[in-house]
Amino acid sequence: MAKNCKVSFSPDQKVVEVPVGTTILSAAMTAGVSLNSLCGGDGVCGRCRVIVREGATSGGTTEFFTRQEIQEGYILACQGRAESNLVVEIPPETRLAGIPQHVVGEIPFLTDLSNLAGRGIRLSSLVRKTYLQLPAPSLEDNVSDLQRLEHGLGRAIDCRNFQMGLKVTRLLPQLLRKADWKVTAVTGHRGPLTEIIDVEAGDTTKRNFCIAADIGTTTVVCHLLDLRDGQTLGRAAKYNSQASFGADVVHRIVYASQEPKHEGALRDAIVSDLNELISELIQRYRLSTGDVTLVSVAGNTAMIHLMLGLPAEQIRKEPYTGAAYHLPPFRAAEAGLQINPRGLLYCAPCVAGFVGADVVGGVFAAGLAHSSETRMLIDIGTNGEIVIGNKDFLVCASASAGPSFEGAECRSGMRATRGAIDHISLLDADHVLNYSTIGSAPPAGICGTGYVDLLAEMLRTGLIDRTGRLNKEASPGRIRIGAHGEAEFVVVPASWTSTGSDLAISQGDIDNIRRAKGAIFAAASVLLDALDMTFKDVAEIMVAGAFGNFLNVGNAVFIGLLPDIPQDRLRFVGNTSIAGAKLAALSSDCYDELFQIASRMTYFELSTAPRFMDEFVAACFFPHTNVEMFPSVMAELSSGKEA
Amino acid sequence: MAKNCKVSFSPDQKVVEVPVGTTILSAAMTAGVSLNSLCGGDGVCGRCRVIVREGATSGGTTEFFTRQEIQEGYILACQGRAESNLVVEIPPETRLAGIPQHVVGEIPFLTDLSNLAGRGIRLSSLVRKTYLQLPAPSLEDNVSDLQRLEHGLGRAIDCRNFQMGLKVTRLLPQLLRKADWKVTAVTGHRGPLTEIIDVEAGDTTKRNFCIAADIGTTTVVCHLLDLRDGQTLGRAAKYNSQASFGADVVHRIVYASQEPKHEGALRDAIVSDLNELISELIQRYRLSTGDVTLVSVAGNTAMIHLMLGLPAEQIRKEPYTGAAYHLPPFRAAEAGLQINPRGLLYCAPCVAGFVGADVVGGVFAAGLAHSSETRMLIDIGTNGEIVIGNKDFLVCASASAGPSFEGAECRSGMRATRGAIDHISLLDADHVLNYSTIGSAPPAGICGTGYVDLLAEMLRTGLIDRTGRLNKEASPGRIRIGAHGEAEFVVVPASWTSTGSDLAISQGDIDNIRRAKGAIFAAASVLLDALDMTFKDVAEIMVAGAFGNFLNVGNAVFIGLLPDIPQDRLRFVGNTSIAGAKLAALSSDCYDELFQIASRMTYFELSTAPRFMDEFVAACFFPHTNVEMFPSVMAELSSGKEA
Repeated sequence: MAKNCKVSFSPDQKVVEVPVGTTILSAAMTAGVSLNSLCGGDGVCGRCRVIVREGATSGGTTEFFTRQEIQEGYILACQGRAESNLVVEIPPETRLAGIPQHVVGEIPFLTDLSNLAGRGIRLSSLVRKTYLQLPAPSLEDNVSDLQRLEHGLGRAIDCRNFQMGLKVTRLLPQLLRKADWKVTAVTGHRGPLTEIIDVEAGDTTKRNFCIAADIGTTTVVCHLLDLRDGQTLGRAAKYNSQASFGADVVHRIVYASQEPKHEGALRDAIVSDLNELISELIQRYRLSTGDVTLVSVAGNTAMIHLMLGLPAEQIRKEPYTGAAYHLPPFRAAEAGLQINPRGLLYCAPCVAGFVGADVVGGVFAAGLAHSSETRMLIDIGTNGEIVIGNKDFLVCASASAGPSFEGAECRSGMRATRGAIDHISLLDADHVLNYSTIGSAPPAGICGTGYVDLLAEMLRTGLIDRTGRLNKEASPGRIRIGAHGEAEFVVVPASWTSTGSDLAISQGDIDNIRRAKGAIFAAASVLLDALDMTFKDVAEIMVAGAFGNFLNVGNAVFIGLLPDIPQDRLRFVGNTSIAGAKLAALSSDCYDELFQIASRMTYFELSTAPRFMDEFVAACFFPHTNVEMFPSVMAELSSGKEA
Repeated sequence: MAKNCKVSFSPDQKVVEVPVGTTILSAAMTAGVSLNSLCGGDGVCGRCRVIVREGATSGGTTEFFTRQEIQEGYILACQGRAESNLVVEIPPETRLAGIPQHVVGEIPFLTDLSNLAGRGIRLSSLVRKTYLQLPAPSLEDNVSDLQRLEHGLGRAIDCRNFQMGLKVTRLLPQLLRKADWKVTAVTGHRGPLTEIIDVEAGDTTKRNFCIAADIGTTTVVCHLLDLRDGQTLGRAAKYNSQASFGADVVHRIVYASQEPKHEGALRDAIVSDLNELISELIQRYRLSTGDVTLVSVAGNTAMIHLMLGLPAEQIRKEPYTGAAYHLPPFRAAEAGLQINPRGLLYCAPCVAGFVGADVVGGVFAAGLAHSSETRMLIDIGTNGEIVIGNKDFLVCASASAGPSFEGAECRSGMRATRGAIDHISLLDADHVLNYSTIGSAPPAGICGTGYVDLLAEMLRTGLIDRTGRLNKEASPGRIRIGAHGEAEFVVVPASWTSTGSDLAISQGDIDNIRRAKGAIFAAASVLLDALDMTFKDVAEIMVAGAFGNFLNVGNAVFIGLLPDIPQDRLRFVGNTSIAGAKLAALSSDCYDELFQIASRMTYFELSTAPRFMDEFVAACFFPHTNVEMFPSVMAELSSGKEA
């Protein structure tokens, strides 16, 4: 039986008893203490800051804190685990009004290892290190060096079908003898074969790391994992440098198809991005390149094509077929990735030209593929992908949303990093009541979740009407014609920002977001319709995506991005794409299952669905032209007018 | 039922009825017509020349004949097959006295495809070409190009686990569309995986060829196979250019181990030899390099190491362990072989440092591994390897013999090619009664089988005594001190040779051959002894080896190379090494089985067997110091003295 310990929360004066090793966030949830902003427990948002005043914790990360804060006891509640009785203080910035409690309670820890065991997933990473103390050869036992290695390894990892390249085989005799037959075998999963990708002298099992990457059209995210225990050590993200060749997938494919040099430029851009993030993580954790033996990639179909130098041209042309959706592992160096020169690159499988490995990983990570009830996954990125299904069927579709939810292509937009406004509430048309920024830093821009809140509040306060038009009369002081000749609403004046400029939302920004949410909602509606279902038939809607931070689901419903169903059936599940890439990296069983899931997913082509364009136009309204679909929103809007 | 046809042999006036498709050699054996010199039916010796006067034949090769001879109807009896009633003339050169009929009757056609079917072996080459007419993609069927290819291929060849490299995948979309979805998939066997090594536009299945190679210490042999039907098209051989770095394996390993440059030089030498032979065969049959997709290699352990650049140093040092005995397929280009750049190189497995893939291939080809009776395989090359066993056990050993049986390191020695004296009989000490040369050309040298005959006849006529010493008094006119200051016997005077020099055998040559046969006989004796067996317990002794031509088994017994057992239990089976390489190339089942056989073979280390040196010294006598082991030889020798 696990030992228990008591965790006290101040200033709430609530105490809860939990097993040793429980995260502070879990303990807070059990205690009914609501913590601020959350990212699916992945530790990426840095918002669940708490101060441990008494007691011992394990886990946690230092990347979001100053030296002084660390000394004061700051820790991320989702990362720190109770090892003894604790006294935990919740600082003011970790509380924000308006976050529905039920959503906090529902956030799953997709890649939490203690959770994985509960889901029957064992740690068996795609690249493994096994330390072997081989018997020295003798006249009675003089098999070849390779056989000796394979016999020892076969016993250690219960495997028989090995394969080793010529280069490593050539080095083997000297290595084994210099290392006195004590070596570490580095092996890679290749379906029915196990590749011995390298052999290292002595015991190097402590140095086996993985980069899990989510390559989005707009954002590239890398996590560094320790393959020994599956822990996530660190995270890094940046905008996809391909953006300069086109904001969306189709523009980039057109560019790449023009001439081979262009294809190379796009490939170089994304490979450089990945290498930059890899290098940053390697340096931050003082690793050497050789310690990273594995890159596990999820991402949309076009991004995976462009990264690997596969021709993507046909993806944008009817009937929208990519070069390859199910790829075997490659040498990471062959794709230009700067990890261990013999390390492997595994790509999660794609389903169609516009339903990629990011979605397949998400379907797995969010548990859709094993669910007995029918669920919906909405993955909001530059493309919005919708999957509806359960353990018996999986149907998917894709709609182009544009990058505004990732903070791109909006005048004051930014990625969900330090200084981004991620939550906003307005008192009235002239006053911002409250906003929060990531890392509690002075505001530098607005990220996706901030825009969702902002539009909902602007709609509530009459700053925009249901078509999205800015209503100058509602706030003559804050709505103006901006420097670009376009109407805009000033969200934060320059004096409060870190940039020294006003943060504003323009009419064009609003229209971008309107179209993005319209496309996603229309895709979900049409796909349901094709299945002869409505939103009421779906047990749960899981919202994944590039929102680096917590989405206010109520506001997402208010603007019509999500349907108006009971909020306990709406769940924000964070970046399920990187969760899928991490699960694949940590478990060869998961990796293999991704391919089965991809094969099970039936793609529904929206571009030929006659209803789609009508539905899209209707869904570009706030919340929708068909107001009956959004009774709670309409009730609130009309009560607001009456007030 | 097979149709029959009648084959008449002249001048014998014998007629036999055989199924259509029977080789003329088989027909002759059935008819009791004895044909001259044979090489195991592999078509390498060019000695079973016959003239087809009437009727239709199939098969055969032109490489041993002049244009005029072809017009006259010359054909090799072992290659030509009766397609109708035939009248076949046996020319004088195809008859030679002294070839025991029983040996002719026993020669197996190791790689004859009609035989293979009888042995339950199906044609399924390691590299296959499959023509596919794929459906074009549509909105209803828009899987990726790679999946489309794999689905089509999977249906065609009943396979599921495919793997394809990044380079080919990158080219796939354009290729499929340019070829209008009609392509040929080139696939390679990789155990549980099938690698799609290339995809070619249109139907290229007619152009799929293989080089099977036997890399001996002294001789390198390549056969060109058509993988469509398994037929052997042509053969080429040359001395191993590594000879200039040392005559035997140990000298070469010592040289290679001195510095990396040396290892490179040995590797370059053998790779150049192979490329020379490959290029010769490609040109002779007007193929392009890209048509050759497969190299299947057998050879001794050291040669395979040196060819692949694997360190061989440990092979010669106790406990004699090589780098790798069971190797996966490699890209042939990675080893420097000039065939299709994406073609594969498969090496048959080795057992120990001195029992190589040549022996494993031989054990399979000669049927030892499946025999219910215990048999012995003696493979005579620069090393002599002995295998004793049956379907239940396989034990093997190796002894260094030197290259004299391959015609090397003897003053007048030469490989078994055109102009080599392959059979000799002496009337008395002063006269050569009869000799034959390969291709009936003027004599240029003496090959291995010629030396066996020569020594037996010299022993019979008293030119040498049982210690091998030349007896000058026996032939004062033909035994002299040669240019090198050494006693020698003139076999053929300069006036009859093509070289313009006398062909002679020196005392040193005799001693080389004496030690070679002593080592092989001693190895067989000691291995039997270790198993508590004698030669009498062996149902059959199969002699394989580098003798390019037919070995006179009676003479081999007479000099004590082979034991004095009933000659119907001795069988010359030719080059079983290349037979093994060919069988592996033609059948992935055979290839897989070679690895099982190699694992079953138990290696017996002779260097630590106390009896070996005594037995070697005893076996260096003619035929042996223990004369009771050779009753028939001693009876003949004493009757000769009495005569």
